[in-house]
Amino acid sequence: MKDQTDIPALMAEIGAAARDAAAELAFASSESKQTALVAAADAVWSRREEIIASNQKDLAYGREKGLTDAMMDRLMLDEDRIRGIVDGLRTVAEQKDPVGETISEWDMPSGLHIRRVRTPLGVVGVIYESRPNVTADAGALCLKAGNAVILRGGSESFHSSSAIHSCLVDGLKAAGLPEAAIQRVPTRDRAAVTEMLHMTGTIDVIVPRGGKGLVGLVQREARVPVFAHLEGICHVYVDKAADPDKARAVVLNAKTRRTGICGSAECLLVHRDIADTLGQQIVDDLMAAGVEVRARGLKGTMEAAESDFGTEFLDMKIAAKVVDDIDEAIAHIRQYGSSHTEAILTEDDAAAARFFQRLDSAILMRNASTQFADGGEFGMGAEIGIATGKMHARGPVGAEQLTSFKYLVEGDGTLRP
Amino acid sequence: MKDQTDIPALMAEIGAAARDAAAELAFASSESKQTALVAAADAVWSRREEIIASNQKDLAYGREKGLTDAMMDRLMLDEDRIRGIVDGLRTVAEQKDPVGETISEWDMPSGLHIRRVRTPLGVVGVIYESRPNVTADAGALCLKAGNAVILRGGSESFHSSSAIHSCLVDGLKAAGLPEAAIQRVPTRDRAAVTEMLHMTGTIDVIVPRGGKGLVGLVQREARVPVFAHLEGICHVYVDKAADPDKARAVVLNAKTRRTGICGSAECLLVHRDIADTLGQQIVDDLMAAGVEVRARGLKGTMEAAESDFGTEFLDMKIAAKVVDDIDEAIAHIRQYGSSHTEAILTEDDAAAARFFQRLDSAILMRNASTQFADGGEFGMGAEIGIATGKMHARGPVGAEQLTSFKYLVEGDGTLRP
Repeated sequence: MKDQTDIPALMAEIGAAARDAAAELAFASSESKQTALVAAADAVWSRREEIIASNQKDLAYGREKGLTDAMMDRLMLDEDRIRGIVDGLRTVAEQKDPVGETISEWDMPSGLHIRRVRTPLGVVGVIYESRPNVTADAGALCLKAGNAVILRGGSESFHSSSAIHSCLVDGLKAAGLPEAAIQRVPTRDRAAVTEMLHMTGTIDVIVPRGGKGLVGLVQREARVPVFAHLEGICHVYVDKAADPDKARAVVLNAKTRRTGICGSAECLLVHRDIADTLGQQIVDDLMAAGVEVRARGLKGTMEAAESDFGTEFLDMKIAAKVVDDIDEAIAHIRQYGSSHTEAILTEDDAAAARFFQRLDSAILMRNASTQFADGGEFGMGAEIGIATGKMHARGPVGAEQLTSFKYLVEGDGTLRP
Repeated sequence: MKDQTDIPALMAEIGAAARDAAAELAFASSESKQTALVAAADAVWSRREEIIASNQKDLAYGREKGLTDAMMDRLMLDEDRIRGIVDGLRTVAEQKDPVGETISEWDMPSGLHIRRVRTPLGVVGVIYESRPNVTADAGALCLKAGNAVILRGGSESFHSSSAIHSCLVDGLKAAGLPEAAIQRVPTRDRAAVTEMLHMTGTIDVIVPRGGKGLVGLVQREARVPVFAHLEGICHVYVDKAADPDKARAVVLNAKTRRTGICGSAECLLVHRDIADTLGQQIVDDLMAAGVEVRARGLKGTMEAAESDFGTEFLDMKIAAKVVDDIDEAIAHIRQYGSSHTEAILTEDDAAAARFFQRLDSAILMRNASTQFADGGEFGMGAEIGIATGKMHARGPVGAEQLTSFKYLVEGDGTLRP
């Protein structure tokens, strides 16, 4: 058992073990990684009672701490949710191994043959809050991409994460892979988080998963690169050339399917020409579904305040506004958006092209619900998070985006003149 | 003329102008960018006398400051070098525009069609020392990739950079592109550098070009992401299965073609089985060419000190060592290398594969000179620098790696179940 009082020493030890494991993982076979993930899935399922018992301890602690119902719900594990974790592990196991893939190759007049080949990033740090399933998802995706991972779960999910982590280690052992490939910080001490954010020589990238408080802290303090989104302030713009049926259905889905996820729509923009007709109908649909519409230029539940624009409600609430044209919609999104996901509803190809070209959010959609902003819906199997930065990874971050690359160059005694 | 005494205000103004220009450049046509680059090339050539006169001022200042001969040489511009700058601009002008390129696209069972499309990064900051040609190269590559750029050249090349920058602006004007697409910090005050390193809301990436002092400072202090290499400690490993003729020629080229560039070999590793034969012959070749060989286990100019391993000589000097096998070579490179470029000389495919798989430098070569570590030799036309980090860009950084991407998703009123 490691000394858990000297946090810098503890984290240095974990970091060194992660680097060693990463060096070995970089050339681990696809089969061994797959074996580890399947064995981990089996372990999670066969040890489900133990996981649920650990989760009970966390739930008791959560009740004591007075967690909100939403947080308690995120924390809770039952057999159904454990089956979800097992399925997730199996899905990642079956994915194509990105490591070693040739991204591109070409010949040069000098006689050199150049290949650009995918490599692991190295060591990934994941800092998350109450969802215990992140332990399995993040561990699996990092392993798939040949990265060692250091998991630092929230104190609320301490026992659940520990039990799930133990199953992942079972998988690593079964495959003969280094146990330090997936490590968990074994302390609730928050100093461990601060330490991780500054381990520039050890951790290649940090992925924070959680609320705005956590993500903001990580973005401000980290000296290590970060893949994250602070907020998902997703906009839906209903163009004058929108198909009314599609528009009504998509807006309703974008707002109400699940309000607590980052892809949920937070602001509706409506072209002036159809504001009184289709626009008002959409607002009425939303209100009929129980959504509080804070509107400007439309008859909503209440008049919108300036602060309603750019707000991530994560609730049955939406801001709504009439705009003169597509350019005002684009300007509004540039000003208030968070570069996550925006959708345009239109049958006009030129309008869609303008929206796609002039906005620079990670995901831009046409005639589709913003709730599709999700790694699974993009065909990535799973995601470790959604990134809104422009460096390296963007949008849903799956195994492939947890890789880097190197150039392999072959000559035949080739000299540079 | 901007106020040049209030550096934070000056840089904020430059930054805001860069962001505005970047928003416009993001959808500038390929033709307009090409026009600007060709017009800039024409301007540099027709204004060459003015550029040379400005350079004379810098040379006088450099003499006064007591710059080394090497630095004076880097600073000097004559008609030949100006022709080189013009050719560089034309080459970048002719390159394919990376912006808008579809990197990949696929359909999902939900009915969504997903495209991953290349976009500009945004605003690039370039901090460089005495080479005035960086002004043109960096300006051109950033423009090609749709990025606005803020150039901060060294005080030594102040007048030369200013004259070249003025030609780039001529090009922008001729193409009707915003002049703020390529800005130059108009002051020698070093506070401007510190400011740039912290402009996280404005600058998306910083590229430092210069010596270890500058690059180290930028890497330590920057809050903005950095593309850089601190050192090029390139290794050449001569395997027991090396072809003697190829090995002798490649090692000589890798060390002596140009000693001052980052791709120059700094350490020779020789397999024990051929140390006394081919290994010694290579060392003798190097010494005959005037190279000081600091050797261990070979008869060199002198015995190697521990500190010679991991040293970037950038001179007619090389460290040399006998290793027991390829794994010792790999371990040595992992310990002393800088993740830049390493080469193996071997006819044994298995040895080459092991070297390629187990090392993680940005560039790995087989039977080719490390001096090929250069954007032009990789077919990128030009490079803004060579990166040894693993995030986003790696190896020679050309226009393509100065881009990010976004997802464009098309549905037909598609709802998420």
